Amino acid sequence: MEALDYHAEERRKAEFDVEEMKIVWAGSRQAYEISDRVARLVASDPVFRKDNRTMLSRKELFKDTLKKAAHAWKRIMELRLPEEEASQLRFFMDQPAFTDLHWGMFIPAIKGSGTEEQKAKWLPMAYKMQIIGCYAQTELGHGSNVQGLETTATFDPHTDEFVLHSPTLTSSKWWPGGLGKVSTHAVVYARLITDGQDHGVHGFIVQLRSLDDHSPLPGITVGDIGMKFGSGAYNSMDNGVLRFDHVRIPRDQMLMGVSQVTREGKYMQSDVPRQLVYGTMVYVRQAIVADASTALSRAVCIATRYSAVRRQFGSQNGGPETQVIGYKTQQNRLFPLLASAYAFRFVGEWLEWLYTDVTQRLQTNDFSTLPEVHACTAGLKSITTSATADAIEECWKLCGGHGYLSSSGLPELFAVYVPACTYEGDNVVLLLQVGRFLMKTVSQLGSGKKPVGTIAYMGRAEHLLQCPCEVEKAEDWLKPHVIVEAFEARAASMVVACAKNLNKFPEQEDGFAELSADLAEAAVAHCQLIVVTKFIEKLQQGIPGKGVKRQLEILCNVYALSLLHKHLGEFVASGYITSEQGALANEQLRLLYSQVRPNAIALVDAFNYTDHFLGSVLGRYDGNVYPKLYEEAWKDPLNETVVPDGYREYIRPILKQHIRVARL
Amino acid sequence: MEALDYHAEERRKAEFDVEEMKIVWAGSRQAYEISDRVARLVASDPVFRKDNRTMLSRKELFKDTLKKAAHAWKRIMELRLPEEEASQLRFFMDQPAFTDLHWGMFIPAIKGSGTEEQKAKWLPMAYKMQIIGCYAQTELGHGSNVQGLETTATFDPHTDEFVLHSPTLTSSKWWPGGLGKVSTHAVVYARLITDGQDHGVHGFIVQLRSLDDHSPLPGITVGDIGMKFGSGAYNSMDNGVLRFDHVRIPRDQMLMGVSQVTREGKYMQSDVPRQLVYGTMVYVRQAIVADASTALSRAVCIATRYSAVRRQFGSQNGGPETQVIGYKTQQNRLFPLLASAYAFRFVGEWLEWLYTDVTQRLQTNDFSTLPEVHACTAGLKSITTSATADAIEECWKLCGGHGYLSSSGLPELFAVYVPACTYEGDNVVLLLQVGRFLMKTVSQLGSGKKPVGTIAYMGRAEHLLQCPCEVEKAEDWLKPHVIVEAFEARAASMVVACAKNLNKFPEQEDGFAELSADLAEAAVAHCQLIVVTKFIEKLQQGIPGKGVKRQLEILCNVYALSLLHKHLGEFVASGYITSEQGALANEQLRLLYSQVRPNAIALVDAFNYTDHFLGSVLGRYDGNVYPKLYEEAWKDPLNETVVPDGYREYIRPILKQHIRVARL
Repeated sequence: MEALDYHAEERRKAEFDVEEMKIVWAGSRQAYEISDRVARLVASDPVFRKDNRTMLSRKELFKDTLKKAAHAWKRIMELRLPEEEASQLRFFMDQPAFTDLHWGMFIPAIKGSGTEEQKAKWLPMAYKMQIIGCYAQTELGHGSNVQGLETTATFDPHTDEFVLHSPTLTSSKWWPGGLGKVSTHAVVYARLITDGQDHGVHGFIVQLRSLDDHSPLPGITVGDIGMKFGSGAYNSMDNGVLRFDHVRIPRDQMLMGVSQVTREGKYMQSDVPRQLVYGTMVYVRQAIVADASTALSRAVCIATRYSAVRRQFGSQNGGPETQVIGYKTQQNRLFPLLASAYAFRFVGEWLEWLYTDVTQRLQTNDFSTLPEVHACTAGLKSITTSATADAIEECWKLCGGHGYLSSSGLPELFAVYVPACTYEGDNVVLLLQVGRFLMKTVSQLGSGKKPVGTIAYMGRAEHLLQCPCEVEKAEDWLKPHVIVEAFEARAASMVVACAKNLNKFPEQEDGFAELSADLAEAAVAHCQLIVVTKFIEKLQQGIPGKGVKRQLEILCNVYALSLLHKHLGEFVASGYITSEQGALANEQLRLLYSQVRPNAIALVDAFNYTDHFLGSVLGRYDGNVYPKLYEEAWKDPLNETVVPDGYREYIRPILKQHIRVARL
Repeated sequence: MEALDYHAEERRKAEFDVEEMKIVWAGSRQAYEISDRVARLVASDPVFRKDNRTMLSRKELFKDTLKKAAHAWKRIMELRLPEEEASQLRFFMDQPAFTDLHWGMFIPAIKGSGTEEQKAKWLPMAYKMQIIGCYAQTELGHGSNVQGLETTATFDPHTDEFVLHSPTLTSSKWWPGGLGKVSTHAVVYARLITDGQDHGVHGFIVQLRSLDDHSPLPGITVGDIGMKFGSGAYNSMDNGVLRFDHVRIPRDQMLMGVSQVTREGKYMQSDVPRQLVYGTMVYVRQAIVADASTALSRAVCIATRYSAVRRQFGSQNGGPETQVIGYKTQQNRLFPLLASAYAFRFVGEWLEWLYTDVTQRLQTNDFSTLPEVHACTAGLKSITTSATADAIEECWKLCGGHGYLSSSGLPELFAVYVPACTYEGDNVVLLLQVGRFLMKTVSQLGSGKKPVGTIAYMGRAEHLLQCPCEVEKAEDWLKPHVIVEAFEARAASMVVACAKNLNKFPEQEDGFAELSADLAEAAVAHCQLIVVTKFIEKLQQGIPGKGVKRQLEILCNVYALSLLHKHLGEFVASGYITSEQGALANEQLRLLYSQVRPNAIALVDAFNYTDHFLGSVLGRYDGNVYPKLYEEAWKDPLNETVVPDGYREYIRPILKQHIRVARL
């Protein structure tokens, strides 16, 4: 078993130091060591097995989640894991669970919007999981538009309480994870009403279930919203529905970090700047970008390894067929995704830095970078999650028919990932926010306000749109400044075109509505420029390890030139490049694929994923795919008997021509 | 209930006669009446309910399939339905089942490759379902490349038998639907070996299971290959694995319509032209294109109706929010898909005619159109199934979070549809076949051989690449000949560029390998031209009904101009249009969206789908979405108890801080 490695030859071919690349991927040697240790801990624990997950019924699957979550918590306590390692353990458990919301939303909401007293009261209980919480914002009829929520929280000055109520069916809370069956508490978002006046949406800590017997408290109707996409996947989570029938909570359970209601029922804004709430949003979205690179790299790892195992056509003289990874059509689809995984990793790293930077600024009341940072994280959340969802699907198509089997791991990975395009800001809505930011930037250009940071290039827009690209031969496209300028010119020309068209409308809002598709495209161009730029900047740092930097340069060029090919029309329309220069870029891209080919397996090995985490027979480290696929098949419940249940009632009467008298 | 119609206002707005459009969509009044009658028959029969399907365990789901298939057969017999209506009934049953393969592959394989004696012996039994058959071609290690199959059928002259054998693990038959648990027989594809000589892959009729007790016959190992993508979906099908250990069958069970093996073991080719087998391939692929328009139209119907129900943002003075179908970003994603559904419908109709035409020609030994017809069907199978899979996914994203719920119907529709990109020819492999055909066409241009049919425009390539486009203002893009020429010029320029680059390679096969991604793109351009052309030709026929033709013209333009925008770089690179003309096309497209908007609901009503067939709460005809979503949620098995199974073992110990001593 130890010795078996069908990929050994591929691994020998690699032209760089894989161990050093693992550290680059992880971000630091320490991060690498922690994740490596925790991943192995989870992989070796039989409670965390997941190979049977897609065969479980809804109830079995949910109970399995409860068991894993409890076991994870037990291990965290036994091993006294610090929070960083505890969260890695939950991550490698790799099963959506109520704990994701408790740690990822409930606690941060109290930390972000509670007063000091509220934090002192609630957080210790939450950290010890004496209470389990979720985040109840979206409603049956209301998703992206938080201001449209209908649930009310009406202050009753007689009793010093808020009365939570669901006035309509569409006001039912709908979707919150952990709500359906587990959470004892929730941060509930509702319209605050005092003395008949609506003050908009605020957060409230509400107990939902008895801490004695887990039954819902009076006035509360709560349940699961039912099956979701895929088998296994997010069906392990109890996304829930919640209705309030005049439920009373004490006044001090309104989160009063920013606004308060006094004993007399007076509504007051605190002097804490509202912008602070954007800090949390930036935090959550940078985490989503990091998750995108993880999900994408998993899919790419599976598709790349199986592409080296799988052979089709090209047999000569009865010899073996060709590895499909050798085909240019396969490379043309796979290698840009491999490059994207690295690109998203590095832009995620940069966003993490950006979050630290903006947090420090906010603490000193410096809000100057906030609009740019907000646009940046919103846009990058949108383009990385959309690209990742598409890429997982493409990876599974790249595995041919077998990618469709649950045992390939790809169907579940896709089904689990795809909601990322919708949650924490619908991707199209976010692009339009970026579009508005870009239009505002253009409108301020004349006023002498110089754009900075990721939008600085707009200050050079005029220059960019006049100087033509210097490319004369294919290899000119390898120069970083040529690539950056091409992406800048494309984005600038699209932004300027939108601004010009917008000016034709008497009412600006009509223009925004009418031109929204164009604005979204301009936003994508702007965000792709950021990803390309951050990848190039990463390469300007010293990167140790034999051949490591060289490989990353190749991937950076693959990322940029494959985008250029895909969006060629936009680049040519900018006037910066000609169609001929575009054709040269495509020629160069093909040459780059040949350079990726011998390193492909090592480049996915650098993600350092265990077979447990990958959860894919096709992506096994040792490449021993076919015997394992065969073995897995026999585990299906249908194979428990040779003759299937239902034969006597439904098959035999057909064959014996008794169907017309059969009792079905 | 009767009176409730949230879409009534939308339906009043329609500017055309929906009843007439239903007939255009169905193809004829007779086709409309049959499908309408059978759809209602299925919808009203409680055995065919499917709203609980995604909640069933694998074994329950499979048994449910057996029950439905038996019931369908019983109804077909009771009502004495002719084959056309019987197949419609199976279609509206809408659950993948072994019967699909029995009727769709087993019977056609015998009809297509059997001798008259074989047909006389086997078909009557198959028609009466006294035997149930499947189609066993693909193997664990071999998919697209049929010539790579490993299963052997060795002739034994001593006993006048073939010996079927699976020599390796990778030779195990893998994927055939109906094989795993049901089929009594299979057409098995295996390498024919006589006297030590390998004659390549041939078909054999093999009995797999006893007709007495359904147990596998000696030497046969057979089972199900396990769970596949999605819940419900294709898990209703027993895709199977099959191994032979020296299984003997009589010589006359080799399908000998084309080749024979004599009593002495001599291998002989018949005088029946091999080209005849292409007829079947054309038939199967044109059926797949028709299926694409069905699947796509279902998804579009759901997304369009829900886009008119769902409201987000834009509330003024506390009034209702804006219907999301009113947003240009929504229209820009949805309406091209609506247009594609109609476009694929009409190109499918034309392919049906093409099949009839080529069949008649083959009967008179006229093989002249075969290469073009083959390229055409291969390419259209590829682009319509890829576009449909992407479109279903897009439709579900267009429904926001709720599209992710099983009750939206979209997850299962997607999971069931996506294999169409792989089966009956992997979509990329097919595009490369089209690419080769295009290169061959170019190479023959000089020889005076005039290209005909869908490839005729290549005879005018030189002219197309010289004359510039006449568009000066946005509405010029409404002229059919302008659109056709733009698509012709784009395809021609890509084809010619590939041919030129190919000539640079000393070895042509190296060129094909290296340029395969470009060839695939050229093939897509060629096939999209065909779809556009056939849509325009359809409109040149007389189409009755108030406003019907006008709506189709709008959709045709939406289809063409949205493709032009998406692939703008290719159109501009052809030199036929400028970037500015491309921008005018996009402007026109926006105007067209406003014309589609008031007709959108009526345009999806024209598909005439019952709520049963749609299987979607979001797509309900009456638009009564939210109460039904709420109602569906409570049916989930998790909601059988208020406190979930597992609370005592796994939740309570956490809350009570007993986790370290809990026995998990």
